[in-house]
Amino acid sequence: MGYEEFTIEGRNAVIEAYRAGRTIDKLYLLDGCQDGPVMTIKREAKKNGTPVKFVTKERLDQISETGKHQGVIAYAAAYAYAEVEDILQAAGEKGEAPFLFLLDNIEDPHNLGAIIRTANLAGAHGVIIPRNRAVGLTATVAKASAGAINYTPVARVTNLPRTIEALKKEGIWFVCADMGGTVMYDLDLKGAIGVVIGSEGEGVGRLTKEKCDMTAAIPMKGNIDSLNASVAAGVLAYEIVRQRLKG
Amino acid sequence: MGYEEFTIEGRNAVIEAYRAGRTIDKLYLLDGCQDGPVMTIKREAKKNGTPVKFVTKERLDQISETGKHQGVIAYAAAYAYAEVEDILQAAGEKGEAPFLFLLDNIEDPHNLGAIIRTANLAGAHGVIIPRNRAVGLTATVAKASAGAINYTPVARVTNLPRTIEALKKEGIWFVCADMGGTVMYDLDLKGAIGVVIGSEGEGVGRLTKEKCDMTAAIPMKGNIDSLNASVAAGVLAYEIVRQRLKG
Repeated sequence: MGYEEFTIEGRNAVIEAYRAGRTIDKLYLLDGCQDGPVMTIKREAKKNGTPVKFVTKERLDQISETGKHQGVIAYAAAYAYAEVEDILQAAGEKGEAPFLFLLDNIEDPHNLGAIIRTANLAGAHGVIIPRNRAVGLTATVAKASAGAINYTPVARVTNLPRTIEALKKEGIWFVCADMGGTVMYDLDLKGAIGVVIGSEGEGVGRLTKEKCDMTAAIPMKGNIDSLNASVAAGVLAYEIVRQRLKG
Repeated sequence: MGYEEFTIEGRNAVIEAYRAGRTIDKLYLLDGCQDGPVMTIKREAKKNGTPVKFVTKERLDQISETGKHQGVIAYAAAYAYAEVEDILQAAGEKGEAPFLFLLDNIEDPHNLGAIIRTANLAGAHGVIIPRNRAVGLTATVAKASAGAINYTPVARVTNLPRTIEALKKEGIWFVCADMGGTVMYDLDLKGAIGVVIGSEGEGVGRLTKEKCDMTAAIPMKGNIDSLNASVAAGVLAYEIVRQRLKG
């Protein structure tokens, strides 16, 4: 699958995509452009919470696949996003305590795909990602998920700390994977749980971490700093699976 | 880091690389070429166990970076390989029971890098990979290992089943990650252990699997078949860490 399948270029094409309800992950607009169709696109972007980047004509020419961008290039999600409520409902329908992942700005599509794959196999009910500064459901993510993207709902939210706060009111506990926490084997991870995984470079952001109930440390013996983000997610996910199986 | 840093093109350059003791991961030779320098390169390749591919001039032109391949293109390892003995010695020096990974034809450099990273942090003493049909220590692998490649020895062997047989005589038990095995939480993984991880598409090969003492299953609840290879390696590695910590 090529990423170009999901690039939409040109004013009318992008306006049509919004009208058809397609999710636009990111929008590139020619800086300073103020005419009617572009203003329509800006309004749609605002309404739908699409991150917009204002760039030069040279930059647009460079990223354009067709050479006919008319000052507008949109990246559309290859797959549809779910809502956070869909994830809770999935848990409810199975009669299981909610088990979900929150990813704090994962940027590598292979990592996001691998985490959706792990979420599916570990029996998690969904994955929540932030709307900004993170990779969306691109074709590369879909491929790396090995099909899991068709089964495991992925929701996008504007503000991760606020989402955590709202979900805590639903009785979900949040555990953040980070060094300096309690060794994960010593935590009780059997109940309704949200696992928070940080970005590849930065780990879990401060504001997000402050909202978490627990910090789980994966024991590390080696010479380097941290596991790959998708491996860390897998290791923590399976400690939860182990504790839940043990009952 | 670009991969091209580690491509060596031209007859003399490749002969020099062999004489300098550099490890050549793979060699492309012009099919039918029989002159002196090429025969020298063939002899070096045989002596060093380099896999050789005979290809057309068109193919060589296509993969050449310099356009001056003279019928010979070699891919040199970005990092030096260790010997299996070095891995056992590392365990001995630490006074620990050997803990190693054997990778049955991992082809994705991101997966190999992530597994070396996991091996380092989980306290494994080394990683063994096959000489053929698998990715070697390329620049991409080094990057994905996040520096772990500088600490955790990686050895290459010609025949994985035979290596397993030899290591069993040293008292190491082999556990292969595969569906249909015993749930990993129910296995005793505390002693000297080699973890065998299969390739992305095929899993663990039959001949390799037959040499293993145990098959460990990672419990799976989802709709798809298998975890990403580096995630599976991480999950199994940390079950071993847990059992060893528990004592």
